[in-house]
Amino acid sequence: MANNEIVEWQFSGSDAAEEAAAASLGTYTSELFALCDPQGKSILPPRNSSPESSHTAEKAVVKAVICGYGNGYAPSIGLPVAKDAVAEYLNRDLDNKLTGDDVFMTVGCKQAIELIVDILAKPEANILIPRSGFPADYVRSLFKKLEVRRYEVIPEKEFEIDLDSVKEMADKNTFAIFIINPHNPNGNYYTEAHLEQLAKLTRELRVMVVSDEVYRWTVFGSNPFVPMGKFSSIVPVITHGSISKGWSVPGWRTGWLALHDLDGVFKSTKVLKAANEFLEINSKPPTVIQAAIPTILEKTPQEFFDRRQSFLKDKVDIAYAKLKEIPTLTCYMKPEACTFLWTELDPSHFVDIEDDQDFCNKLAKEENLVVLPGIAFGQKNWLRHSIDMETPELEDAFTRLKSFCERHN
Amino acid sequence: MANNEIVEWQFSGSDAAEEAAAASLGTYTSELFALCDPQGKSILPPRNSSPESSHTAEKAVVKAVICGYGNGYAPSIGLPVAKDAVAEYLNRDLDNKLTGDDVFMTVGCKQAIELIVDILAKPEANILIPRSGFPADYVRSLFKKLEVRRYEVIPEKEFEIDLDSVKEMADKNTFAIFIINPHNPNGNYYTEAHLEQLAKLTRELRVMVVSDEVYRWTVFGSNPFVPMGKFSSIVPVITHGSISKGWSVPGWRTGWLALHDLDGVFKSTKVLKAANEFLEINSKPPTVIQAAIPTILEKTPQEFFDRRQSFLKDKVDIAYAKLKEIPTLTCYMKPEACTFLWTELDPSHFVDIEDDQDFCNKLAKEENLVVLPGIAFGQKNWLRHSIDMETPELEDAFTRLKSFCERHN
Repeated sequence: MANNEIVEWQFSGSDAAEEAAAASLGTYTSELFALCDPQGKSILPPRNSSPESSHTAEKAVVKAVICGYGNGYAPSIGLPVAKDAVAEYLNRDLDNKLTGDDVFMTVGCKQAIELIVDILAKPEANILIPRSGFPADYVRSLFKKLEVRRYEVIPEKEFEIDLDSVKEMADKNTFAIFIINPHNPNGNYYTEAHLEQLAKLTRELRVMVVSDEVYRWTVFGSNPFVPMGKFSSIVPVITHGSISKGWSVPGWRTGWLALHDLDGVFKSTKVLKAANEFLEINSKPPTVIQAAIPTILEKTPQEFFDRRQSFLKDKVDIAYAKLKEIPTLTCYMKPEACTFLWTELDPSHFVDIEDDQDFCNKLAKEENLVVLPGIAFGQKNWLRHSIDMETPELEDAFTRLKSFCERHN
Repeated sequence: MANNEIVEWQFSGSDAAEEAAAASLGTYTSELFALCDPQGKSILPPRNSSPESSHTAEKAVVKAVICGYGNGYAPSIGLPVAKDAVAEYLNRDLDNKLTGDDVFMTVGCKQAIELIVDILAKPEANILIPRSGFPADYVRSLFKKLEVRRYEVIPEKEFEIDLDSVKEMADKNTFAIFIINPHNPNGNYYTEAHLEQLAKLTRELRVMVVSDEVYRWTVFGSNPFVPMGKFSSIVPVITHGSISKGWSVPGWRTGWLALHDLDGVFKSTKVLKAANEFLEINSKPPTVIQAAIPTILEKTPQEFFDRRQSFLKDKVDIAYAKLKEIPTLTCYMKPEACTFLWTELDPSHFVDIEDDQDFCNKLAKEENLVVLPGIAFGQKNWLRHSIDMETPELEDAFTRLKSFCERHN
């Protein structure tokens, strides 16, 4: 072949995903891990360790594999047995019962969030999302050019939603308010009274509520967890979740969304139609895991969740106590859910730290410790610290953090 | 609550996926199955049966589940061991060797196709796709508003690509030619000489070749299968595949794409950058299956594929012989790959059949037999008949088809 001549190839790659990819949590995380020195001390949090998963879940998937229950294609909206099982599971806490028809299976919770953004994306529309918050909704909105507006939460009131700020942000083009409950990264969850207030306000504003409830199984405060679906007689609600966090199997990529309809609103507003259409052309979660969902949801003993919750509560106690020795970082509330501490950073306390991103970069380089910058969650100069590791590693992490803060003080 | 008042909700669902969803194969298939009578005779092809999957693959996934090899998140570009294993596997047939860095793991082959369309979608760009062909590229292009142009294949020459038609279709905005090899639905695969001609032509046209090779394991003709990557010293090539068809586990949703680069072209044209960005914001295949990929690819005995191929060859022989009794349908070539017969329909032979869609609708209603209309593959008045079932069912299917054709003759 005459391969030596220079060919001016006609094609080129699209840059349509550039901005969204840069804003994704995965990008922030990998960039920080890449700053760590693999030859230096152990990198924290340990990248390849994960909490013990549920044996019930493992056995259910093994059975599905061996028996060939999930080798074929599933319908685009999900395997009927999985949809039914999710509905039944969620119904434990609901007066307005769901059926399998209200549930759609997704590739983890992340695809559920993306699907909702896709359904709502229109040129003039906007959605309200929390400052701060797990950024999948923001990243997808960037990609789909859907306007996002950030409502505030109140650190001094256990990170309650600032309902006045919601009211202020909303206008006639607002389609939905997104909440995260339990909240990643704030570590709180909402009381029944607060959710009811929110439901009434959103009804007044004529927008739906979208509630990310993926962390509902890692709650260790004293109040019970209340799902937003409980208020679906006031306002149309979409909730989403997955087995990722509760069963410690995010790599199984299986989640769902549930439409808690109010008088057929999702049908008349074509939300249901759009959900079906987007699911038809989107990626599907593995059938073989979907086939195991009924057993996973019904049969996992409460003891599994109790053990995990008490593990996390213990780690939060340790980390929170260690944080008291670092006066330059402020934690407004000892978390009652999820797997993080969320602290405020005042750069003026430091001699050579510009902001949260700079803090995290230097911390990774100097201490092989990865803490995520608030900016990744929409809030500059805050920090998200993982507490989901064994005690010696956790203590090591906070010792490094302390020494880093003192060195730059 | 004062729930009786009528609320004019502000939100509404997007119709951005409407056209694409209507064109998807899943939509055509479910609509036809919905026309069948569940109370009538058995519905064919049987919907819930699938060929026996590979025991090696099953054992590999069971091991990954039990040992917790795939419970955590994988990198967005794929699990390194899976990427390496795919590269090594594809290298068996290649002189220009791939590394794991050239491979990206995807949610089945379908997401690989969608990813390539996403990478190439630009306002003025166009791609060439075959008339007929498996429609994932067409459906995604509809959704992304990427112009598609159909090149022709030649039924009388064993469905070779009509290279003149490729040349005619291409212009300065053509980014890629998509081929399907082995071809679904045509049932042929290309000779080495033909692929080399194609490579030379596309180099001349300055476009890349994208080759769907998901059916490379279900080949039962006398020629060896030749992957397009073999010609990556002539033209940049992207190939994609998955374990879905070869190992009979489409429900495991795990595939890949491989960039067979030529002198860094994919880097300089930003295709590599775009691939990384889109993967960062897209759904990921299950880590737990990715973890099993090395064993699946390396350890599955040849005997497993031989058995499947001889099963399919047998079914093709039976179906092809039965088809000879139906003179109103023309099959240009006895298939040498895949799991279908592809026949031409001349509506003028029938008294009350308008076209392929009408034929398929009536066939489903009258005979509980689902055959897909050519229009779903971009070619009106052709039909795709599945042959992937046990002999008694296959004979029953073609008996019903014959009786239907005679009745409407």
